[in-house]
Amino acid sequence: MSKKNIYEPLDMPRRVILGPGPSSANPRVLRAMSLPIVGYLDPAFFDLLEKVSGMLNEIFLTNQMSFAVAGSGSAGMEAGLVSLAEPGDKVIICSYGYFCERQIIMAKRLGLNVIPIRTEWGKSFDPQVLLDTLKSHTDTKLVLGIHAETSTGTINPIKEMAKISHDFGSLFMTDVVTSLAGSELQFDEWEIDYAYSGSQKCLAAPPGISPVAMSTKALEYIRNRKTLPSSWYLDLSLIWDYWSENHIAHHTAPVSMIYGLREAAALTLNEGLFERWERHKVNASALRAGLKALNLDLPISKSDRLDQLTVINLPKDIDDVKLRSKILEQYSIEVGRGLGDFAGKVIRIGLMGESCYPPNVLYILQALENIIPQFGIEISEGNAVNAASDEYSKNGIKKFYE
Amino acid sequence: MSKKNIYEPLDMPRRVILGPGPSSANPRVLRAMSLPIVGYLDPAFFDLLEKVSGMLNEIFLTNQMSFAVAGSGSAGMEAGLVSLAEPGDKVIICSYGYFCERQIIMAKRLGLNVIPIRTEWGKSFDPQVLLDTLKSHTDTKLVLGIHAETSTGTINPIKEMAKISHDFGSLFMTDVVTSLAGSELQFDEWEIDYAYSGSQKCLAAPPGISPVAMSTKALEYIRNRKTLPSSWYLDLSLIWDYWSENHIAHHTAPVSMIYGLREAAALTLNEGLFERWERHKVNASALRAGLKALNLDLPISKSDRLDQLTVINLPKDIDDVKLRSKILEQYSIEVGRGLGDFAGKVIRIGLMGESCYPPNVLYILQALENIIPQFGIEISEGNAVNAASDEYSKNGIKKFYE
Repeated sequence: MSKKNIYEPLDMPRRVILGPGPSSANPRVLRAMSLPIVGYLDPAFFDLLEKVSGMLNEIFLTNQMSFAVAGSGSAGMEAGLVSLAEPGDKVIICSYGYFCERQIIMAKRLGLNVIPIRTEWGKSFDPQVLLDTLKSHTDTKLVLGIHAETSTGTINPIKEMAKISHDFGSLFMTDVVTSLAGSELQFDEWEIDYAYSGSQKCLAAPPGISPVAMSTKALEYIRNRKTLPSSWYLDLSLIWDYWSENHIAHHTAPVSMIYGLREAAALTLNEGLFERWERHKVNASALRAGLKALNLDLPISKSDRLDQLTVINLPKDIDDVKLRSKILEQYSIEVGRGLGDFAGKVIRIGLMGESCYPPNVLYILQALENIIPQFGIEISEGNAVNAASDEYSKNGIKKFYE
Repeated sequence: MSKKNIYEPLDMPRRVILGPGPSSANPRVLRAMSLPIVGYLDPAFFDLLEKVSGMLNEIFLTNQMSFAVAGSGSAGMEAGLVSLAEPGDKVIICSYGYFCERQIIMAKRLGLNVIPIRTEWGKSFDPQVLLDTLKSHTDTKLVLGIHAETSTGTINPIKEMAKISHDFGSLFMTDVVTSLAGSELQFDEWEIDYAYSGSQKCLAAPPGISPVAMSTKALEYIRNRKTLPSSWYLDLSLIWDYWSENHIAHHTAPVSMIYGLREAAALTLNEGLFERWERHKVNASALRAGLKALNLDLPISKSDRLDQLTVINLPKDIDDVKLRSKILEQYSIEVGRGLGDFAGKVIRIGLMGESCYPPNVLYILQALENIIPQFGIEISEGNAVNAASDEYSKNGIKKFYE
């Protein structure tokens, strides 16, 4: 057995990831992912699946079914669309951002009869519009609305949207990719039927697995629908059959990603769900104090804003691509570009999960303070970092990691 | 921020994984997966994608397109079916095992017009049967045949099957989940249009990502088909658009799994592809010498057998479930059960990737030698391990790791 040794071990640059996702992964999560694996039909792994399901129940705040789809958040999105409606079924998609439009694209490919409700990007959705639409589409089977729209940085009233959908006999499905473990989300209390998330945002794990929660009503629907979902891989009832107590073999589960998800869920529960939501709020508020000191405007009104993601209007002399390149090259920080209607007009700064700590807030403000003058715009030095620090003090934050 | 510290870091039992997959992961792969992540749109990550694609080209032996589907091998399977045929299209599926039947299940859900060719489980497929079937189904758009059938442990003549399919103007798609990096596979030379694999077998990475290769002809087909694939997540043309030089954003890529895949590909190329195929052959031959000394029969004839996976007939006094439990409980070794027609009648021992080394061969033989007498069957002690050692010596193997 000759050894060629062409390839050295992988090394990658170190980044501070402050984009819209993925965010940085917690080191304890990464360590769990480097554990030797066991088989996906091993009794010890079945035991782990049940524990992870229970931990996710605590994070989604549900007593129904939590598990994970073996793919990115978009796999969780497609799993819901393919499982919770049949081709030809009427499906209302409330659209106020890029990821709502992705839902529409997927739903159309699946042959669903899509009724889009398009409202202004950057404003929280008004549930009254859904009510009015449902009145003229009473045969709607499923309604979709995104909780945290990552393209625009808005939070949306999914509790009200779920209520209205149920009043008309529809199931309600939502996207909590960016909100889970970062904003208040109550799956049972808000009567959601299906919510899909991602591992790579406020849960602080790497991307590649989609934690989901499903109501018993949704599962009953899948078991009784006339045709089988066109996707075997993303059929939520088969995935649940594997995760739940009978552990019926489906595809080979992503063992290491589930180790990582377990660790991320453990760390979330160790911190406390409410405390974690608060952490996202406090850091967002410090960032925004700093941005204000830099004379940067936020296009989203205070009431509609997400804590995890801050969208910033670019001053007219600042080119989007150049700004992000400078931030990456000079500071090794990743921030996000604008998407769709917002392309070229904004940047997006995410403070999620492991990325959501004061050192990162101070560092990105410092970076902006140094880079903005490179575009010929004058700024008083030190104001931004000081403003953020003052905001932390006001919130009683002295020590950042415990 | 209160700390509850309910959950300690994850710990899992240590196993010797000798089932049909996953196999154990190489420690250098696990280490790569614990590296801090970068974003999936980071220029450094794009560079990595291009390198991994090139390395996979060397492993598939292709100059066309290699990349990875973000899911298990079954996601790679479904990606091929949803991308390479349209609902109503005639698709021939050659079926001689459990995973062929999974292809049929998926294809029917997708609304394809499936013509199954079912032949005896445990025998390599005879290409003449495909030729005869194609003569009466000349409007077939796609033919499927599995290279290494993991349920039965057979290797199949996909080179001939691809040739016949092309003679009738069909595309040819194959499953190389268990064969890639463990048996000879020549994507270009054999004129395959699409092959999907898994990370968790002979590549020695954890499960969760599906390396695939695609011909330019297959990509042209997808770009020109009348309807879009019903799956957005598994549309191979969109996934390729992200991996290839334009790096058009699709779903968030599973960064850590791609780190692991890179490392697994690097280690495969460091060892040498031919040398790796040989390693699988030599270890299989030692295992089989030992099994013979234990008076255990193999249902698959020598010419039809895979090296990576050995199917063993259970003597009539040995209960399948009890045997596997004892092996797991007394030795912490996982072996596989029989599936479909083989359920309850066989066990399957995999020697793949990182699991395919002599210490594991000697250890499972030792385990069987000690456990079989627990079922009241007499065995002479030490014969099996000695027979395997002799076989290694015959093959000139003295030192096992370099």
